[in-house]
Amino acid sequence: MSIPTRSKTVLGIDPGFDRIGAAILDENKVLYSCCIETDRGLLHAERLFEIGMAIKKIIKKWKPAALAIESLFFNQNITNALKVSEARGVILYEASMAGLKTYEYSPQAVKIAVTGYGKADKIQMEMMVRRLINLPKKSSKRLDDEVDAIALGITHLATKKSI
Amino acid sequence: MSIPTRSKTVLGIDPGFDRIGAAILDENKVLYSCCIETDRGLLHAERLFEIGMAIKKIIKKWKPAALAIESLFFNQNITNALKVSEARGVILYEASMAGLKTYEYSPQAVKIAVTGYGKADKIQMEMMVRRLINLPKKSSKRLDDEVDAIALGITHLATKKSI
Repeated sequence: MSIPTRSKTVLGIDPGFDRIGAAILDENKVLYSCCIETDRGLLHAERLFEIGMAIKKIIKKWKPAALAIESLFFNQNITNALKVSEARGVILYEASMAGLKTYEYSPQAVKIAVTGYGKADKIQMEMMVRRLINLPKKSSKRLDDEVDAIALGITHLATKKSI
Repeated sequence: MSIPTRSKTVLGIDPGFDRIGAAILDENKVLYSCCIETDRGLLHAERLFEIGMAIKKIIKKWKPAALAIESLFFNQNITNALKVSEARGVILYEASMAGLKTYEYSPQAVKIAVTGYGKADKIQMEMMVRRLINLPKKSSKRLDDEVDAIALGITHLATKKSI
């Protein structure tokens, strides 16, 4: 399945298994953002199914040209890292099926792109995200994962512009 | 997408990123087995795409009712474990889309089911697989991954029978 894409629209993803941040950005604004939460009562494979279907739906609606996703390195909780990798696989697979180009950014690269400081905390990140880009009003509070997904989109747009 | 399944047919998968063993078994024989090899010249997401498409094709042709896949634990090569987990995610996702039930077995559980010994080596495993099940003739040599996928199918059938 290859769908027509909007050339300057990017899907930012903060990967996870319980919660996945997703954001659609174009050159200077956030068009959409959300936090996909999987149902803990479901079986493992069913939760991966939920993740894939949610990503498919977002891609179908917003037609981004690229996926910007956080890369994953070793962390202390290996069981969790393996689960998040499974979810990453599903997300990359859906993006690939829809013909999106995929780009990976390390957490540190995202922090540097957004705040200029590789060890910025969550509060600094959210503050800078609000300064850098127009965020649509939203009734519910944005979760960290959602802010991180927006930050990934910003990183991608900034990196691509400067090339 | 939910497709009709053959109730006693299982898809055994030895997950990997470079090579994935796949086997279709029914009660007492191997109907099909192969080793899916991804093209190292392709991009990361494209290789996940190749894996998913190959799994989709096998499920569509053989209509198994269940997936028996090796579980993954911490191993020394963490980078590789994360890549294999991404592939596992794609495989579980395709199985889930087709309505297969999924079952996970540890490498040790497979060795015990097939040889009675949790530390069996590859030669012992292949020898016992040949004794336990009818293998179709094949012109090319079976790779270890393919034998492991058959062993996963045997483990599943043996476990399910004894419940």
